[in-house]
Amino acid sequence: MSSLAIENIGLLLTNDPELGDGPLGMVENASIAFEDGLVAEIGPAGSAQADHHVDAGGRCVMPGFVDSHTHLVFAGDRAREFAARMAGEPYSAGGIRVTTDSTRAATREELTGLTEGRRREAIRAGITHTEIKSGYGLDVPSELCCLEVAAEFTDDVTFLGAHVVPSEFEGRADDYVDLVCGEMLAACAPHSRWIDVFCEVGAFDRDQSRRVLEAGREAGLGLRVHGNQLGPGPGVQLAVEMGAASVDHCTYLEDADLEALASGSTVATFLPATDFSTRQPYPDARRAIDAGVEVAVATNTNPGSSNTTAMGFCLALAVRDMGMTIDEAVRAATVGGATALGRSDIGRLTPGARADAVLLNAASHADFVYRPGVPLVDATFIAGQLCS
Amino acid sequence: MSSLAIENIGLLLTNDPELGDGPLGMVENASIAFEDGLVAEIGPAGSAQADHHVDAGGRCVMPGFVDSHTHLVFAGDRAREFAARMAGEPYSAGGIRVTTDSTRAATREELTGLTEGRRREAIRAGITHTEIKSGYGLDVPSELCCLEVAAEFTDDVTFLGAHVVPSEFEGRADDYVDLVCGEMLAACAPHSRWIDVFCEVGAFDRDQSRRVLEAGREAGLGLRVHGNQLGPGPGVQLAVEMGAASVDHCTYLEDADLEALASGSTVATFLPATDFSTRQPYPDARRAIDAGVEVAVATNTNPGSSNTTAMGFCLALAVRDMGMTIDEAVRAATVGGATALGRSDIGRLTPGARADAVLLNAASHADFVYRPGVPLVDATFIAGQLCS
Repeated sequence: MSSLAIENIGLLLTNDPELGDGPLGMVENASIAFEDGLVAEIGPAGSAQADHHVDAGGRCVMPGFVDSHTHLVFAGDRAREFAARMAGEPYSAGGIRVTTDSTRAATREELTGLTEGRRREAIRAGITHTEIKSGYGLDVPSELCCLEVAAEFTDDVTFLGAHVVPSEFEGRADDYVDLVCGEMLAACAPHSRWIDVFCEVGAFDRDQSRRVLEAGREAGLGLRVHGNQLGPGPGVQLAVEMGAASVDHCTYLEDADLEALASGSTVATFLPATDFSTRQPYPDARRAIDAGVEVAVATNTNPGSSNTTAMGFCLALAVRDMGMTIDEAVRAATVGGATALGRSDIGRLTPGARADAVLLNAASHADFVYRPGVPLVDATFIAGQLCS
Repeated sequence: MSSLAIENIGLLLTNDPELGDGPLGMVENASIAFEDGLVAEIGPAGSAQADHHVDAGGRCVMPGFVDSHTHLVFAGDRAREFAARMAGEPYSAGGIRVTTDSTRAATREELTGLTEGRRREAIRAGITHTEIKSGYGLDVPSELCCLEVAAEFTDDVTFLGAHVVPSEFEGRADDYVDLVCGEMLAACAPHSRWIDVFCEVGAFDRDQSRRVLEAGREAGLGLRVHGNQLGPGPGVQLAVEMGAASVDHCTYLEDADLEALASGSTVATFLPATDFSTRQPYPDARRAIDAGVEVAVATNTNPGSSNTTAMGFCLALAVRDMGMTIDEAVRAATVGGATALGRSDIGRLTPGARADAVLLNAASHADFVYRPGVPLVDATFIAGQLCS
């Protein structure tokens, strides 16, 4: 494999405080070399040895975004539901079933093509690694199909059979949980790294969520939880109690939730574009960080509540409306996402890490917030290869 | 000049209710032909005659955005001030002076290059026509230079000598107004179409603003006002009383302001990215529209309070946080901007209008809000020419 160096970097973020200034490990006037898909060396500008060179022209290079929460595999859209919501309708979890109908009706090839288009868009937005969930199949063959499609794009595949109770199980949620924990899990676990459950009014309650997580753990899967999105609920504390890697949404955090998170190892993953698109109040990320909670920011790309791949937009909201500093938000969307996926090989540009980086059309990562909505990613490198 | 047709349009917005459905004049399965820089014909898909054809592939084509409020000519940035604001510092008009220092220090060639880069970025965001203000020179030669640079990019050039009192006039605001209305206006009026004044605490009061507007009108310029940005103030009512084409910001609108706007011909131009970037509350655009006020949405691209060209982002905020419907927001950023500039030749795709159009990577204009932050503009046509 040939080597590649990015030269003439005005500002390099490594996310390693031992390599540079502050929590982002910032180095000015730097170069970085990639070899065999990994970061080989970081040095002053002009020092990198490699077969190929890219000139950053004094601009900023940083770790690619690690998007730890997406639902990239789906068919159909819900633009009409969205417009109705903007005209005053509240968001409810039930809309998921609309996407289930179109996803079940799609062929595997159609789902692969749709997912590929979304992944390409995400790469252009600087997302070098993504988690992908199932959760719009909700029967054994459809869930399995969605997981197999997801696996074409990532090794962080999450089985989310417990996304919502499908209409054919209306009024029989416990029967559906039996299916999820039984035949569906047996079919899906070999294709997944994680299991996830939507613990929320309108989806699954505390006991049902616990059953799903226990069954997943038994099948060898890591645990993730959707919790506390639409109101206070048991999701956060259940996630911490069961040692989930991450609990996601966290829009409503009460004191006991913060205490649990601060005392445990579960990451609180915020999904700012979801609160934007559902007109929920924004969570107080500042309070969570100040309480000592480890945080991540992710896109939650999905057709119902957050139809965007624009991680830069998520960062702008995290700072403007959730009280993070710019540096905290950038860290939450890189090394924070990696931690939420239990990984230390991505989310940082340190020797030996995967060479996942973005070159910005900007002097600094601050422009994701200072220049909101502007597409800032000029080039995305994944495992040392230029991808967009 | 050769002709060009866009074929196979899934959804065409004309902004003419007589040509299609609703206020946006929507036509499904359409084609549009451009000739000699103007819209020649609109018809069903497959009908357009032209030398060159573009296949829209069933996607959406709409009028390009008309950005009626920008400060594209400046040097330097204010990322540090922005970061401080995100950490709790309030916004004040005084920061304008920082940009004045760097703009005065720049050469005309540097300013032209910087403006060209910003204009290119705006075109990629779908902005086919832009107004550009001076206002960072604040002495006669620098204001003149900025206006001449602006005129290279638009015929809607606005003289904003009364942006803020420059530091060399500290404590002598009336003397500075004398300069603006005298020697500066005499030098600048031949290079401008409009005069503008920042009527706000920290900038110019009602009487000073009136003097500036009267002098501008006397010199043959159309009138624009920055008003009611940082608190209630006299700007809106002064603008209406003097027949200004537009009063911009309108973050704080009281009943008397709405009554004045509804009874006059002045457009209320909202600048959502500014309220975002300064952490102001969002104005209640819904209330203004329901009161019968004509509205526009613009970017206010500038380094202090809104460093973005992303009109799509502005639309998402206008809907999510200011209560506009998606259709109202799109209309406000196209025909609304044109009205705020007193123009009927742009902002719509009707036979004889300038052929300023965008082809979206989307089935509908709704995706500017439904898919927030995603770059949706695939191609931008200005006067019938593909520009990006």
